[in-house]
Amino acid sequence: MYTLVLIRHGESLWNRENRFTGWRDVDLSPQGIEEARSAGKALREQGLDFDMAYTSVLKRAIRTLWLIQEEMDLMWMPVIRTWRLNERHYGALTGLNKTETVEKYGEEQVHIWRRSYDIPPPAYNPDDQDNPAFHRRYQEIQRSDLPMTECLKDTVARFIPYWNDEIAPAVRSGKQVLITAHGNSLRALVKHLDQISDADIPDLNIPTGIPLVYELDANLKPIKHYYLGDEEKVKAAMEAVKNQGKAK
Amino acid sequence: MYTLVLIRHGESLWNRENRFTGWRDVDLSPQGIEEARSAGKALREQGLDFDMAYTSVLKRAIRTLWLIQEEMDLMWMPVIRTWRLNERHYGALTGLNKTETVEKYGEEQVHIWRRSYDIPPPAYNPDDQDNPAFHRRYQEIQRSDLPMTECLKDTVARFIPYWNDEIAPAVRSGKQVLITAHGNSLRALVKHLDQISDADIPDLNIPTGIPLVYELDANLKPIKHYYLGDEEKVKAAMEAVKNQGKAK
Repeated sequence: MYTLVLIRHGESLWNRENRFTGWRDVDLSPQGIEEARSAGKALREQGLDFDMAYTSVLKRAIRTLWLIQEEMDLMWMPVIRTWRLNERHYGALTGLNKTETVEKYGEEQVHIWRRSYDIPPPAYNPDDQDNPAFHRRYQEIQRSDLPMTECLKDTVARFIPYWNDEIAPAVRSGKQVLITAHGNSLRALVKHLDQISDADIPDLNIPTGIPLVYELDANLKPIKHYYLGDEEKVKAAMEAVKNQGKAK
Repeated sequence: MYTLVLIRHGESLWNRENRFTGWRDVDLSPQGIEEARSAGKALREQGLDFDMAYTSVLKRAIRTLWLIQEEMDLMWMPVIRTWRLNERHYGALTGLNKTETVEKYGEEQVHIWRRSYDIPPPAYNPDDQDNPAFHRRYQEIQRSDLPMTECLKDTVARFIPYWNDEIAPAVRSGKQVLITAHGNSLRALVKHLDQISDADIPDLNIPTGIPLVYELDANLKPIKHYYLGDEEKVKAAMEAVKNQGKAK
């Protein structure tokens, strides 16, 4: 039996401002830093331990990992960064305030872009160098692999091969793996592990900063999963995420 | 022409207490944190940039790297940790206050252990689980490769193959590489790059927290090297390191 722990980064500065962040490299808010520290403490107190970690190339996920490493005295462990764990790319919505977007396009359209499985928001123009996908950190990625926008289905399509080729073999080899990532890249993984349908996955809300512990069998099928934290806190965190897209 | 930057971690809590640290995983002091931040700022202001970093599995080097990554907005870059960049293993001297050691063994003997090229201090007993070399982070290393003590020659012997096999090819492929490490693992590299003799290398004092920039030709032979910082500061830092072993 294997243990795998997933954690969505704590609150970022743009979560606070209710903006579509996607691939924009926004840091944690002071509250997000506290969430990450608490997660590290909870993991330590639960007696969980890790041999290695995977994270995205975005600093809100990386800083969440650093804070957990500090709290667990695991600064030494190998860390692998991959763009395939990045948040979903929100295309031309990137940087827009969610409330403004709702006012402009209507709540229903925004809900579709945020929560449908296969309808992406408007894409960046490939000549627009403002697209964070053109940052130096992605220079070794084939241009054709770089998204100009993504629906959740696209995020699943670029992450699951990496899971199968890189992370799953590490777990199977007996490594205790921690993944610190984003709402949608973690949705992609949870969809895969728990075989959640395309129709149901958009309604799954993963709270920020709360470790999600999976116990997996020899075939990496989930035996059970649970959040590390008290029930009320987890429930409140899930509600908070669900309400982010609502007009204010 | 390639650029390679080396940096010795900032002051640690045990540097302050004048203890032999070696493989013990001691964190930076508040001053060490400041040194690392200043180094990051100096690198940024100099217009230097990096594609990847190598560091040890000891937190004083890793935290130095993290602070530089923060200052340079490079949290996303790949980082490879290796025990081969660890500080020299000080064997049975690990944890002892340098002044006490001088009182016990005499200044000359301590100077020999610290500064001779090929005379190691007394070794740990392989059954002594207090030896930091038995920590979980080293579990995948062959037992016969794990040092129980080291002279500088031993540190050179375990680091240079890694340089040749891993780091040098990365530099040659055009990657801008940063190495954050320790007094003796960096001595090993500088000895190799500048072809310093066994007799002379123990007198080379690399100051803490000051970037050492190498410009290398196509064969990785140094064209020139310089410290990033004003001359007085570098000189003072070198003197401080040299005086650490003196009785107080």
